[in-house]
Amino acid sequence: MVLYWNLRRSKPGLSPSSPHPEIKDQWHDGRIPQRSNLRRLKVYTRPLARLIEQLQHLPGIGPKSAQRLALHILKRPEMEVQALAQALLDAKKQVGVCSECFHLSAEPVCEICRAPNRDSHIVCVVADSKDVIAIEKTREYPGLYHVLGGLISPMDGIGPEQLHISPLIKRVSQKKIQEVILAISPSIEGDTTTLYIGQLLKPFTKVTRIAFGLPMGGDLEYADEVTLARALEGRRELD
Amino acid sequence: MVLYWNLRRSKPGLSPSSPHPEIKDQWHDGRIPQRSNLRRLKVYTRPLARLIEQLQHLPGIGPKSAQRLALHILKRPEMEVQALAQALLDAKKQVGVCSECFHLSAEPVCEICRAPNRDSHIVCVVADSKDVIAIEKTREYPGLYHVLGGLISPMDGIGPEQLHISPLIKRVSQKKIQEVILAISPSIEGDTTTLYIGQLLKPFTKVTRIAFGLPMGGDLEYADEVTLARALEGRRELD
Repeated sequence: MVLYWNLRRSKPGLSPSSPHPEIKDQWHDGRIPQRSNLRRLKVYTRPLARLIEQLQHLPGIGPKSAQRLALHILKRPEMEVQALAQALLDAKKQVGVCSECFHLSAEPVCEICRAPNRDSHIVCVVADSKDVIAIEKTREYPGLYHVLGGLISPMDGIGPEQLHISPLIKRVSQKKIQEVILAISPSIEGDTTTLYIGQLLKPFTKVTRIAFGLPMGGDLEYADEVTLARALEGRRELD
Repeated sequence: MVLYWNLRRSKPGLSPSSPHPEIKDQWHDGRIPQRSNLRRLKVYTRPLARLIEQLQHLPGIGPKSAQRLALHILKRPEMEVQALAQALLDAKKQVGVCSECFHLSAEPVCEICRAPNRDSHIVCVVADSKDVIAIEKTREYPGLYHVLGGLISPMDGIGPEQLHISPLIKRVSQKKIQEVILAISPSIEGDTTTLYIGQLLKPFTKVTRIAFGLPMGGDLEYADEVTLARALEGRRELD
């Protein structure tokens, strides 16, 4: 690529037949790289540059996506942009956590905890609100949740006291909970957290952990050893 | 997958050893699919659902990305979310187009048109502001621009009068323009627009079109026929 630009720069002008020597000179007199460096920051007009910069803070949005999004936004009607900005502000301002289960909620107690048709005897413990959403999407789980807000990770300075563990113990010890399902991803932090909570809850109720094994459509041949070991360990008798 | 769920549903309960028959019954009495359909819309608390919906209007953002972005936003400090919302509103409110070249600009005349060190004798005609940004990023072009705001496309009801073509003719005929470079992508609409503008501008100045051919790093073997034909057609003598 460098070779190519050098080649181009060494050419005499716009085209061999350019009738304007003054243009050639200005374009190829060697001052351009320096001038361009100054100009580099001004490719975008200021409010656009600021929007692109803000969009780049979002996860998975790099400079190219941010530019595409920003230019798209500028083309939309003002109403639509206002709706997006308002949705951002409203979500941030209105959404807190449920005082019962710590799931995201716009009300003091979330819709799941308030639902009369949910089974309040089962509590599923997850690390994060997005895990609640994932489980809700299966449409298979009838019980309630408890969001820890993270996993025990001494490396990152996160101990049990930084998580919503003591409200969970209180909840399980005081209410009629018949089963606590620990739905925490298998990892060093996940296993530590599962073990820790399991020990604390066992005196009060039955504690289970979700199954680990081959994913649906997963090929035994390509499964990693840990998954396979867990699948063997978790084997069940055929009925 | 369907088989799998049916299999699970037909099982007697949470686990064969579940000590709570009432849980089994509620979970597997056949009412769940219906109830879940109702619940489906409530996976997200309302302000979160609205934010996810708004984010999905953006190009390249599907339901999964929108959820990831929204949950990320909820975790950020309020200041940061306000900055993003403000950047959106500011960009939409402040950024208009340059009265001279129709490039995006927060001022009546854009920074490129006002720059004293740009060569005002060359005008590069592009379809869209994002093409200006792309060319600016090459840091090779010293002249000015003219943004058409689209391409002639009778199929979509876009004729020359919907584009900024007459201001271009006026600009070229009144000012000392020594070359107009048409930098429009090769396509049916692009070629039509190039041809149309070329005919109109030829009486006033030299009109050129950017080169089409093999891209840098492109492999001759894998180039499509049209690109290869254009590359042959646009061949130049070695110096």
